[in-house]
Amino acid sequence: MALNKRPFFQPAASNQPAGPPGGHIWFTEYHSPASGITVRAEKTLFTGKSAFQEIVLLETEDYGRMLVLDGAIQTTERDEFVYHEMIVHVPLCAHPRPRRVLIVGGGDGGCVREALRHPEVERVTLVEIDGMVVELCRKFLPKIAGSLGDPRVELCIEDGVRFVKNHTRAFDVIIVDSTDPVNMASPLTRAPFFRAAKEALAPGGVYACQSQGPVFEARGMRRIARTIRKVFPDAAHYLASVPTYPGGMWSFALASKGGKRPAAASFAPSRPLPRGVKTRYYTPEIHRAAFALPRFVQEIIR
Amino acid sequence: MALNKRPFFQPAASNQPAGPPGGHIWFTEYHSPASGITVRAEKTLFTGKSAFQEIVLLETEDYGRMLVLDGAIQTTERDEFVYHEMIVHVPLCAHPRPRRVLIVGGGDGGCVREALRHPEVERVTLVEIDGMVVELCRKFLPKIAGSLGDPRVELCIEDGVRFVKNHTRAFDVIIVDSTDPVNMASPLTRAPFFRAAKEALAPGGVYACQSQGPVFEARGMRRIARTIRKVFPDAAHYLASVPTYPGGMWSFALASKGGKRPAAASFAPSRPLPRGVKTRYYTPEIHRAAFALPRFVQEIIR
Repeated sequence: MALNKRPFFQPAASNQPAGPPGGHIWFTEYHSPASGITVRAEKTLFTGKSAFQEIVLLETEDYGRMLVLDGAIQTTERDEFVYHEMIVHVPLCAHPRPRRVLIVGGGDGGCVREALRHPEVERVTLVEIDGMVVELCRKFLPKIAGSLGDPRVELCIEDGVRFVKNHTRAFDVIIVDSTDPVNMASPLTRAPFFRAAKEALAPGGVYACQSQGPVFEARGMRRIARTIRKVFPDAAHYLASVPTYPGGMWSFALASKGGKRPAAASFAPSRPLPRGVKTRYYTPEIHRAAFALPRFVQEIIR
Repeated sequence: MALNKRPFFQPAASNQPAGPPGGHIWFTEYHSPASGITVRAEKTLFTGKSAFQEIVLLETEDYGRMLVLDGAIQTTERDEFVYHEMIVHVPLCAHPRPRRVLIVGGGDGGCVREALRHPEVERVTLVEIDGMVVELCRKFLPKIAGSLGDPRVELCIEDGVRFVKNHTRAFDVIIVDSTDPVNMASPLTRAPFFRAAKEALAPGGVYACQSQGPVFEARGMRRIARTIRKVFPDAAHYLASVPTYPGGMWSFALASKGGKRPAAASFAPSRPLPRGVKTRYYTPEIHRAAFALPRFVQEIIR
């Protein structure tokens, strides 16, 4: 998810494998000026600019359909389950009775889909700043965005910062599924937003957000970790393996409004996943294990 | 570590960032015909062929020096600590008193270095089939290979399969740090080798090996898992995040000769890391957590 302003379409070079008639392109996301992930796309489904960002949708062989914002892979049909299950089921299972869920960002609908799998959830509010992302994901990524039409979903095309400031004690769980903390996503990782989010949580509420990767975004991860702890003393980080994200390792923060929740170090599921919910990554054991951080990650967030 | 016969040097394309005077190359390891990791190398330190494989050593900006065998990244200065700590400290800490350690493969010396950090270890035997790998790593990767001259190390340039067959009850821990299971490394993942390794272990002995990645090598991982369980009923798999390996997620198998060791599902450290040993990935919590497998990985090895 590293933002990258480098031109990211490469023509198929002669030493690369031949594609179907009509050719193919190789999309490369540079995680730094000196390395990246390269993926062959059979087809460009969409390319354009919204008011906020450059949006590309590709049909790839290895990862299925892929959403790219400002040159950074956001989600792919093949590996989205890791990110969406881990950013949603960890906070939802950490909360004993999550009824009202707010998702900030997450215009692809993946978080909404996972949240709706919990029968306790009565209402999911999705606040996405970029309506074009929602429209395009509904059209091109129905497997991910397919739950956006559910009657329990309230969809607001609006600035998440403003939305959160206007709500108090309104949500049991807030999940921030944002792009990298630059441009419009930058305020979502700053103290004023965390404070507003804490206010917007009901007592006993749980907050979760993506907190960048420890391999290529260590500085950003450290900044988020230090900022969130100032507002939520009870914050902890957890990890998941996302193949298409820089370094293959991604971090999340989990925090609680405090009072009724256990200390950060012992974050564990309050309840199992609802019966009949089949996951592909999340399990109660993974929930606990994800908070065990490699020493180099502990040092980043110290 | 996926073997790849595709030509893997690309000239710097015009839309890629400018390098230092003298130019640079982009090395791409294809994890499939349709995706891979691409890394800029400032310098090619060595390129040649041994009796067994094509050997390339690169100086890269993001990953430091990098060893590439038959087109597959084996180890890099920047992320080798993950793989080497996890393939060594898990079996060594699972064993209550590891005195004699055998490493099969691992010609870069990283496993030897980590094993020697345990003061209980009296002797480390490294059996590597390709002497050229050892020589080149001593020359170009001294941070990794620097312990090969330790007086506790016995270095055998020999076929590991034959070596293991010729030893009985000789080792407390056997670690197989092999390339992908093709060509000369293929027999190392077959039942006859696992049976010979079990014989070569002393009572209460522990066996560990890399067991491929679940993202791009699911079939190979399944085959190893099913084969190893036939020989070691007590085998379990664990995971670590290795940024330069396919999919960023790598698996290992841990097995015991049985009798004195706990059941596979509860593999946990028998003892802490020796005092004063500073790791960058491994911790006792990571040891336990690494055995929690995402559901899609559980399904691969079922």
